[in-house]
Amino acid sequence: MFRSHTCGELRDTHINKEVTLAGWVQKTRDKGFMLWIDLRDRYGITQLIFDEERSSQTLMEQAKTLGREFVIQVKGTVIERTSKNPNLPSGDIEILVSELIVLNKSLLPPFTIEDQTDGGEELRMKYRYLDIRRNPVKNNLIFRHKVTQHVRNYLTNEGFIEVETPYLIKSTPEGARDFVVPSRMNEGQFYALPQSPQTFKQLLMVGGIDKYFQIVKCFRDEDLRADRQPEFTQIDCEMAFVEQEDILNVFEGLIGYLLKEVNGVTVEKFPRMTYEEAMQKYGNDKPDIRFGMGFGELNAVAQHKDFNVFNQAELVVGIAVPNGNEYSRKDIDKLIDWVKRPQVGALGMVYVRCNDDGSYKSSVDKFYNQDDLAKWAEITGAKKGDLICVLSGNATKVRKQLSALRMELAEHLGLRNPKEFAPLWITDFPLLEWDEDAKRYHAMHHPFTSPKSGQLELLETNPGDVKANAYDLVLNGIEIGGGSIRIHDKKTQALMFDYLGFTKEEANAQFGFLMNAFEYGAPPHGGIAFGLDRLVAILGGQETIRDFIAFPKNNSGRDVMIDAPAPIDDAQLKELSLKLDLKS
Amino acid sequence: MFRSHTCGELRDTHINKEVTLAGWVQKTRDKGFMLWIDLRDRYGITQLIFDEERSSQTLMEQAKTLGREFVIQVKGTVIERTSKNPNLPSGDIEILVSELIVLNKSLLPPFTIEDQTDGGEELRMKYRYLDIRRNPVKNNLIFRHKVTQHVRNYLTNEGFIEVETPYLIKSTPEGARDFVVPSRMNEGQFYALPQSPQTFKQLLMVGGIDKYFQIVKCFRDEDLRADRQPEFTQIDCEMAFVEQEDILNVFEGLIGYLLKEVNGVTVEKFPRMTYEEAMQKYGNDKPDIRFGMGFGELNAVAQHKDFNVFNQAELVVGIAVPNGNEYSRKDIDKLIDWVKRPQVGALGMVYVRCNDDGSYKSSVDKFYNQDDLAKWAEITGAKKGDLICVLSGNATKVRKQLSALRMELAEHLGLRNPKEFAPLWITDFPLLEWDEDAKRYHAMHHPFTSPKSGQLELLETNPGDVKANAYDLVLNGIEIGGGSIRIHDKKTQALMFDYLGFTKEEANAQFGFLMNAFEYGAPPHGGIAFGLDRLVAILGGQETIRDFIAFPKNNSGRDVMIDAPAPIDDAQLKELSLKLDLKS
Repeated sequence: MFRSHTCGELRDTHINKEVTLAGWVQKTRDKGFMLWIDLRDRYGITQLIFDEERSSQTLMEQAKTLGREFVIQVKGTVIERTSKNPNLPSGDIEILVSELIVLNKSLLPPFTIEDQTDGGEELRMKYRYLDIRRNPVKNNLIFRHKVTQHVRNYLTNEGFIEVETPYLIKSTPEGARDFVVPSRMNEGQFYALPQSPQTFKQLLMVGGIDKYFQIVKCFRDEDLRADRQPEFTQIDCEMAFVEQEDILNVFEGLIGYLLKEVNGVTVEKFPRMTYEEAMQKYGNDKPDIRFGMGFGELNAVAQHKDFNVFNQAELVVGIAVPNGNEYSRKDIDKLIDWVKRPQVGALGMVYVRCNDDGSYKSSVDKFYNQDDLAKWAEITGAKKGDLICVLSGNATKVRKQLSALRMELAEHLGLRNPKEFAPLWITDFPLLEWDEDAKRYHAMHHPFTSPKSGQLELLETNPGDVKANAYDLVLNGIEIGGGSIRIHDKKTQALMFDYLGFTKEEANAQFGFLMNAFEYGAPPHGGIAFGLDRLVAILGGQETIRDFIAFPKNNSGRDVMIDAPAPIDDAQLKELSLKLDLKS
Repeated sequence: MFRSHTCGELRDTHINKEVTLAGWVQKTRDKGFMLWIDLRDRYGITQLIFDEERSSQTLMEQAKTLGREFVIQVKGTVIERTSKNPNLPSGDIEILVSELIVLNKSLLPPFTIEDQTDGGEELRMKYRYLDIRRNPVKNNLIFRHKVTQHVRNYLTNEGFIEVETPYLIKSTPEGARDFVVPSRMNEGQFYALPQSPQTFKQLLMVGGIDKYFQIVKCFRDEDLRADRQPEFTQIDCEMAFVEQEDILNVFEGLIGYLLKEVNGVTVEKFPRMTYEEAMQKYGNDKPDIRFGMGFGELNAVAQHKDFNVFNQAELVVGIAVPNGNEYSRKDIDKLIDWVKRPQVGALGMVYVRCNDDGSYKSSVDKFYNQDDLAKWAEITGAKKGDLICVLSGNATKVRKQLSALRMELAEHLGLRNPKEFAPLWITDFPLLEWDEDAKRYHAMHHPFTSPKSGQLELLETNPGDVKANAYDLVLNGIEIGGGSIRIHDKKTQALMFDYLGFTKEEANAQFGFLMNAFEYGAPPHGGIAFGLDRLVAILGGQETIRDFIAFPKNNSGRDVMIDAPAPIDDAQLKELSLKLDLKS
């Protein structure tokens, strides 16, 4: 062992002890006759001291040659500091060094190894091994480990078995694109990397492993939006002999446990909301309920007046911005510009100032009197001093626009406190969603989701109205998990594939094994999967997942540190019976 | 919830309780006026009873329609059994059923769902979801979960952090073949699936995460020998600021803990043996030391007599078979035939019977007298009643042959007790191994292994003699883990690549990121990786790994259940800028 102690553990109780430490030179203060070094390792920083009186000349000279990030080993005595540093756990002591060994030199790092670094994103990714030395990244990785250990221990105590499902599986055209893996031993054939272990966990249910989980990598060859990774980690779970209520309870238990253990926050009972309610009240199926500003629908009170914009709209809907009457005319103009940006797409915004004297002043005073506006205030819950913002138009679009505005305002108003946690179940998702491009319905969750009992018949007449036994768990406005009760009989599953446009042959080729399995006594079952990267980031009080992943890829799916992907040589291609067929 | 209790928990304390159970029909005994069903779930079996007196006629009739593996839900009362079954934990009670719901029917399963099944290997693989219902397979999966939980908890308590490393990395031609993954977003380029997270864990050491572990899938596109899988799971570990001794101690702790917790076996201190000793004493770098039969080298006492076969041999070496004198002439002839099989390849075998009266009778009595043979007995440790088996020839080959014979004999003699555990560290592996085909040296472990200090110079003169800081952990004759202290400076690493035949450009293209990292203060580090599949199988008292893997592949790397790999469609190939280039 290169050390007797870490750089984080020495205290005044160790004074006069001979110790050996090893670590990185964080920084050097050289006063000529005296020299201090901050020695850093994973556990902390300990100050080393060299001085003319007590250190040999050789040692002093040697110490002066050390650069930042040199790896050194020192032997010395723990002594009391003359000027203590109350900000450092080891700040009461320092090490009077008697021996110094340079274990490895270092070039000058391309960015500073400090909590606030001067390195940009790309540079930090290229030298990720240096970035990981920084406390914020290192602590995130340790935090992630802690969370996953809690998850595993909790689920194990609840009787769940972690089962590893295969990574080399079969490609299925449904959903996002698969990454494929050519097989050398089976010429012209390919494995696919799993987008999720969905079918395997269902087979485990058929196999009687009635409580399964797995923390597992999944893969999607999607065009990467910001903060998406081609490989990501799921907490994948499934249970047999359960109904939706059971799953919600068990996994409310898990997330509640994490909030308690990791964040010290107790949430007694997670609120629930149907998809329809969420869309109506927040214009969003993952509302952030750390703050209010619920939607108030104003059709009844705002239409049938002389304001044609509202009269022609499918939906007139507003929110009350707390203390929004403080906004200047210029502030409000900025908001109007903001909702009119193409990313949001509103045509305009009507507003009502709720004055402290109880009167109202609106941008549509020509059409609405004080009594009208008082009704608006009542419906949106606006109080004196608030501002009511109202959008109108196509219901789906306007809800989305107002939801965006709500989030933007909350951000500005500091209502999105990362130390506050507001979980929320969304239930009763539609089974299908309309694909405008393909002019047909797709499974909203996936084709294994069961419709609500008695609704299967609606498929023929009102497919968009069929509700599924599907649910999401939302935390602080971010979907952290989702799942469903599955279909467990062959007939319904075949019907669903048929409905989703699979021919019998396609359904059989791709999912025949699952439908076969359903013929041998498949139990009722359902499950949920959580996105671990995102869950960890939110519990850690942050929103970007990248710094909770040790070696993330950039937005082009590249690992800029190892420079992957990369060309492979012809011999390797030939062995795989492949030829490149480049477009450019 | 479909049940109030599982089929494994009801006891006589529950008598008179109303319960709801759900599970599979294991078997039905129908006496006409009375009918019993064994209902099975993950937790056990509970007997259901229907009879003419107490059950309605409808219920009786319904019960008679149930086939094997039907999934049912029953409500009923726990009653005392008239004839108890002491072999069943729930054998004191049965359920008088009042309500029966068929949750799902089942076709007749293609093999029996019993501990001893009538299903062959391929059939069981195809219907793996049914195979998993069988206790032996189900219990293996549960056992695997238990072992991995112990591993994670132990290492976490020791301060290790589990860090996920990427699955989409870069292909390197060194070692076994990589599986590659074409990148759609980076035309003509490929990721590779990791054969191990080797370079990433070393980068984590450079990053200051000084105790890392990960239970992680690895991939090798090798021609599959029996009991190898293209995807397998490792317990991958690395530590910084350590020497070999530290690693051996920490991971002896881990395996000792598992033996204690999982098997109830205490092994005080794992013995150690150098590679050279192991080869000399057991002809094998992974000797099974649950039994003796160490090699006795007989050159000094068996050569320079008139027996030319021995005189011309590089090595004459024998083992004493306990009580082997009981073997008939026919038995011994069988042994001789066995060693002469092409798989073993010996030209013949000399034997010496050690009679109970202290005399010897050998197959070479013409050349050796009783005194000679007494010396053989002394050197091989043969006692009265034993049989000495002697092989001769080229040292490397003959050691291998005798090792094979030793294992074969031990198997026959029942010395390989799966309930006994004999771990053994093998140390001081050679750095390089000669590749007869390529006529050059390869890294025996991998190119990141450090040579023993002061031996680097030997590379030029006697490369085969250079010893590495490399070690294996052997359990019951099977290598369960291996590792090394790594090179941590750029110069040595570059030298090693150069020595292994990499050009500077190749070394840079493939491992430039690692050598760069070594320039920024890489600490001394080393690690080990355990094969989880095999470790779990051995701890479970078995040798084949396949039944400890939920969904294994067959010897052609196929998943016969989902029928993967499989062709993908042209559109998918085109998107990946690939064309098939089939040989046949």
